[in-house]
Amino acid sequence: MPYFDAASSAPLHPVARQALQASLDEGWADPARLYREGRRARLLLDAAREAAADAVGCRPDELVFTPSGTRALHSGIAGALAGRRRAGSHLVVSAVEHSAVLHAAEGRPVTEVPVDRWGAVSPGVFGEALREDTALACLQSANHEVGTEQPVAEVAERCRAAGVPLLVDAAQSLGWGPVGGDWSLLTASAHKWGGPAGVGLLAVRKGVRFAPQDPADERESGRAPGFENIPAIVAAAASLRAVRDSAETEARRLRELVDRIRTRVPELVPDVEVVGDPVRRLPHLVTFSCLYVDGETVLHELDRAGFSVSSGSSCTSSTLTPSHVLRAMGVLSEGNVRVSLPTGTAEEDVDRFLEVLPGIVAGVRGRLGAPAAGGTSTGSGSLVVDALGKRCPVPVIELAKVIGDVPVGGTVTVLADDEAARLDIPAWCGMRDQEYVGESPAPVGTAYVVRRRG
Amino acid sequence: MPYFDAASSAPLHPVARQALQASLDEGWADPARLYREGRRARLLLDAAREAAADAVGCRPDELVFTPSGTRALHSGIAGALAGRRRAGSHLVVSAVEHSAVLHAAEGRPVTEVPVDRWGAVSPGVFGEALREDTALACLQSANHEVGTEQPVAEVAERCRAAGVPLLVDAAQSLGWGPVGGDWSLLTASAHKWGGPAGVGLLAVRKGVRFAPQDPADERESGRAPGFENIPAIVAAAASLRAVRDSAETEARRLRELVDRIRTRVPELVPDVEVVGDPVRRLPHLVTFSCLYVDGETVLHELDRAGFSVSSGSSCTSSTLTPSHVLRAMGVLSEGNVRVSLPTGTAEEDVDRFLEVLPGIVAGVRGRLGAPAAGGTSTGSGSLVVDALGKRCPVPVIELAKVIGDVPVGGTVTVLADDEAARLDIPAWCGMRDQEYVGESPAPVGTAYVVRRRG
Repeated sequence: MPYFDAASSAPLHPVARQALQASLDEGWADPARLYREGRRARLLLDAAREAAADAVGCRPDELVFTPSGTRALHSGIAGALAGRRRAGSHLVVSAVEHSAVLHAAEGRPVTEVPVDRWGAVSPGVFGEALREDTALACLQSANHEVGTEQPVAEVAERCRAAGVPLLVDAAQSLGWGPVGGDWSLLTASAHKWGGPAGVGLLAVRKGVRFAPQDPADERESGRAPGFENIPAIVAAAASLRAVRDSAETEARRLRELVDRIRTRVPELVPDVEVVGDPVRRLPHLVTFSCLYVDGETVLHELDRAGFSVSSGSSCTSSTLTPSHVLRAMGVLSEGNVRVSLPTGTAEEDVDRFLEVLPGIVAGVRGRLGAPAAGGTSTGSGSLVVDALGKRCPVPVIELAKVIGDVPVGGTVTVLADDEAARLDIPAWCGMRDQEYVGESPAPVGTAYVVRRRG
Repeated sequence: MPYFDAASSAPLHPVARQALQASLDEGWADPARLYREGRRARLLLDAAREAAADAVGCRPDELVFTPSGTRALHSGIAGALAGRRRAGSHLVVSAVEHSAVLHAAEGRPVTEVPVDRWGAVSPGVFGEALREDTALACLQSANHEVGTEQPVAEVAERCRAAGVPLLVDAAQSLGWGPVGGDWSLLTASAHKWGGPAGVGLLAVRKGVRFAPQDPADERESGRAPGFENIPAIVAAAASLRAVRDSAETEARRLRELVDRIRTRVPELVPDVEVVGDPVRRLPHLVTFSCLYVDGETVLHELDRAGFSVSSGSSCTSSTLTPSHVLRAMGVLSEGNVRVSLPTGTAEEDVDRFLEVLPGIVAGVRGRLGAPAAGGTSTGSGSLVVDALGKRCPVPVIELAKVIGDVPVGGTVTVLADDEAARLDIPAWCGMRDQEYVGESPAPVGTAYVVRRRG
């Protein structure tokens, strides 16, 4: 039963399990106490901090353990902003940061730096967003949905020149290697590299102004309140070291498997867009979107076939809007599938995924009445398609069905009120080489106009 | 090697260990995902919530898991205050709450309700502190340093009548039983009952206005950001159930052992004050203070003898002021020792503790040159003792040495700058039946005046 969603949470690494079990007996006492149980706990905590700092590339006294990567981001952003209060309160973030960053920035003046079609920021554009009153800049090391690596070192240089601290969210990449460049703060999350849940990292370089915003607490240098979870911290540090030991070999192996998916999926499945940078990317992650299907049904069918993947589509479970990452990239969100391979993924499992995927997509398309590829008959004039009240991918399916009915140069206007149409209709035009004219408000919903090119 | 500091952190309960290990394989995935690994994780989380809510005495949808008891307090207090913003921002707390409560209240208008000599608030006095603009009241179920149970049900009634929500910090008592009374919010910490570190509970009754103050996050009803630590949560819930199953029997047994300490210590060690309520108290916890010794040395000697205990004295490790709890009670802080017995403590270990304690205290007193009990010779006039720059217990030792040198009715003035003297000199007067006249500022430090009675 292949699990292909390591970017959400990786299965517990065997080294993490061993370290956790071994430290349950020694690591339960309060490390602030002076008696032997406390001293033992303190030794474990100190050793874990040394190991984690070594993997991060910082000094042990620059690193604290938090209860999660999310909390590391929340505390890191709040503390860095408060430490730079006198400079201002403006924040610069990429438009594709994790939602924990974007939520932590809410209520403050924020500049979201746009990304290109591959999901990367431009260091120049990022640098231009830095202002006199910018207190903090945040940039992920690599994107969690599409795998694109960000130009962290170049952006860090520009931040350094502007005197603005840069916080790097390294949640997706820390298991693969340290983050290069002259960053000021760094956060990560152990369960992403096969460590246990319950452990995040927050590194704050010496000299970076930092004023913790949680209520006062003497633990973890005052930067992470609450009793330390030492067995989990020990397991996190031990597994980080273990995954790093095999990172180079495993990255090469998984990169080939991901390349296979990147190459074969568009060959096997019509009307697919593989998104994210094909080269500057995480080794284990690939994302693609399929026209004329909804992500939730594809995920459900893949789960039935034994594959656990995730999706940034709007039609999945809890959310009604497409992923802000895909939106910022301006790529198709319809039928979005993210595959992120855990360490040790077998080649056969990837091949079997490639075997079952085409049938699953075709099946969903068939049930939704999606058009066959192409469309050549000509009618006349312009058409209006009423897709109000229809959820994605129906508006795009309706558009595709009728585009052949107008002459070259004629237009199809799609009336839709599903938020995903705003992203998916232009993306469809790009994929099918049709002209996207634009959108305008309609009495109900929005009117999207497409001109037939060929 | 007896560990007598369960109130700091209890050793991992065997049931917690089993549950943790069993759920490492099933509980690592994201419970928000729809694939099978996510569904399994969700099932574990839901079952743990049911079990914990049952033990708390609330509905499952009223309970969220936080990364620690401290975080439960921080989030609970912040959320409840924000939810009642329109009523005001005033907070009522007991003077002996855990420091996490007092720190979370910093920067707000706070009334600290005093406690009696046993450490308990009076429901009447607590009720009178509630104002028109009181947004929240906080009261622990039982004190963490002296074990005294608070009149939660009576205070909850008064809060209810005043329309003020009551948050109960049940960290020390939840393993022994549910908190009675009509409370509005409740917090707890798993590692206090033998669960793993990394799990706190926050219960918010339906109908209580609550506005989470952490950045937005969809996990745990938006009340506890960050990826859920499901194996630890499962272990916490399972061990809570297990300790509850044996709570009645074990409480009876430990209560007798604690009574033995309460009775025997003053018989075996001269000049000792046992503090906290002798009846309305936690079953497993007892605190006493010894004149003429410093807490740190006693702890160190006890550790060498194999006993791990803690202390609220000022002279221990990280802190220079005596415990705010002992201060609020107005009892001696000198040579303070807290014994909190974990589940399963052997009777022989308690007896051995009673065997070694008198020698240890006598040894420390001897090295510090403490006076023998009593003191009868008479001199004349009044004396001034200069104890400036001397750390506790020296100022009290110097006082005790000379009190016999002034006539009955004469005074000794102690000049001291150790903060503990403010507490310990009046407490010494109470214990030795001398009259404490009062204190006044001196050119350096403070002058404490004591009149000899007999």
